[in-house]
Amino acid sequence: MNVKSRLATLHKKVDSALDRWLPSAGTKPKTLHSAMRYSVFAGGKRLRPAMCLAAAEACGGRLSAAMPSACAIECIHTYSLVHDDLPCMDDDDLRRGRPTTHKVFGEGVAVLTGDALLTMAFEILSRTEPTERYEVKDFLKELAISAGSLQLIGGQVADLEAENQKVTPSALEFIHLGKTAAMISLSLRLGAMSANARPADCRALAKFGTHLGLAFQIIDDILDIMQTSERLGKSAGKDVAAGKATYPAVFGLEKSRSEAVRYTKIALQALKPLGGKADFLRGIGDYLLEREF
Amino acid sequence: MNVKSRLATLHKKVDSALDRWLPSAGTKPKTLHSAMRYSVFAGGKRLRPAMCLAAAEACGGRLSAAMPSACAIECIHTYSLVHDDLPCMDDDDLRRGRPTTHKVFGEGVAVLTGDALLTMAFEILSRTEPTERYEVKDFLKELAISAGSLQLIGGQVADLEAENQKVTPSALEFIHLGKTAAMISLSLRLGAMSANARPADCRALAKFGTHLGLAFQIIDDILDIMQTSERLGKSAGKDVAAGKATYPAVFGLEKSRSEAVRYTKIALQALKPLGGKADFLRGIGDYLLEREF
Repeated sequence: MNVKSRLATLHKKVDSALDRWLPSAGTKPKTLHSAMRYSVFAGGKRLRPAMCLAAAEACGGRLSAAMPSACAIECIHTYSLVHDDLPCMDDDDLRRGRPTTHKVFGEGVAVLTGDALLTMAFEILSRTEPTERYEVKDFLKELAISAGSLQLIGGQVADLEAENQKVTPSALEFIHLGKTAAMISLSLRLGAMSANARPADCRALAKFGTHLGLAFQIIDDILDIMQTSERLGKSAGKDVAAGKATYPAVFGLEKSRSEAVRYTKIALQALKPLGGKADFLRGIGDYLLEREF
Repeated sequence: MNVKSRLATLHKKVDSALDRWLPSAGTKPKTLHSAMRYSVFAGGKRLRPAMCLAAAEACGGRLSAAMPSACAIECIHTYSLVHDDLPCMDDDDLRRGRPTTHKVFGEGVAVLTGDALLTMAFEILSRTEPTERYEVKDFLKELAISAGSLQLIGGQVADLEAENQKVTPSALEFIHLGKTAAMISLSLRLGAMSANARPADCRALAKFGTHLGLAFQIIDDILDIMQTSERLGKSAGKDVAAGKATYPAVFGLEKSRSEAVRYTKIALQALKPLGGKADFLRGIGDYLLEREF
């Protein structure tokens, strides 16, 4: 299977759905809607929505049924990047090779653009269809919990607080579970739910997502050290400069690499009950690991 | 009827429900949950949740059924204040007589606190009970739309953009409809929906809310000019200093007062179909108008 070309196909489908759901750039207030579109269509890889769609397929569902979940998750992901890049947070001027939202539209509009994308995620997800096992409110509740103060935002705050501090391995795991693994795990769970998957399959996919998410963040941290800004599309070496709590900072590069491999293995093992239907997800797991080595 | 004492009773009920739903201040990350509680329990008047509960009663519903809607709305209101007070927005140091969230917890945590309260609103609302006419997703969708880029956030962006600009009456109305009237109208609509109100009653209450919201914002703008910071509990005279688009700035004080009265009258007229059951809401309308004159 060609993972890259399947990802590219899903990328296009997700983009055209997002294009349908986001108000046009000419909608009043134009600045806000332009900024929302600038942020969402900024060359992201759409990995989370692709995993959501792949999870739906792996559970015998239709892509179209998973699309509201996929797009809601991408809106949440984008909002978290827009806020994360603000001067009062990570203070990044560059994201995916382009100026960040606040550099183009100003800080006030960037805060509100993130707020609007976060809110829009719930609006989009409220359009999902219920299945035999799952009501629409179940989807919305899962999203609110994963994106909330105990997971995504909790991880962001812990990340901010850990700057220039000595961080324990368990504090580091708390940060990574929250700021990265929670939304990847959610992507797979919502995709499975949209396919009316049995609770056991939802759990297996959530476990895959959590561990893949941990591996993903470790690899991201390694790339921040190893690559140039140009290849990375964002400012490289910023983690070290900001005294960020990263795997390489706590464990060193070599141990970080082996941890990324270990977490990916646990992730792939979790897919066993799904058999051959999860081959694309396995391919994504391998692909994410290989982007480094 | 003693409107003030009924409002005080509802205030207490809302506070105790919010206290149950917000994670304790000791929940990890402690800074975030402390900041969420600091922001929510900052002496707000709980007008929006009170109107939500009053609308439920006016439609023959129970307070407890409307409580998730009331608390969700207060979370949204608080998040919008926390973000609005940020240095990159209105740059306010004082709110309800206390230092604003970013003054106490820093800007980064304040952005994330607002994000967390916005997200929590959807989590709380996902616990509402469906009624015969309205599914849980209907409540969530209404919230997402009213708090989204076309209404609440749209109004905030238009407000930011109007600073130091010449503003037309219709641009001013767009701002006020979005940043104030949308959420007040939503409060009444969700309260009515929780009571399984007929669509016509929901519309009547929404109309009451929209016009009361417009009157409310005009009065707020007048108070900003007329009162001292001490009485107001927030920095007074800031609108003029910031070149804000306000009714007094566009129409002058006298015309602004008469507009507040006019909008309140339209609001009260909208309650006619509800008869005597809406007396408390009428009392709130009069009370809000009288806080000025």
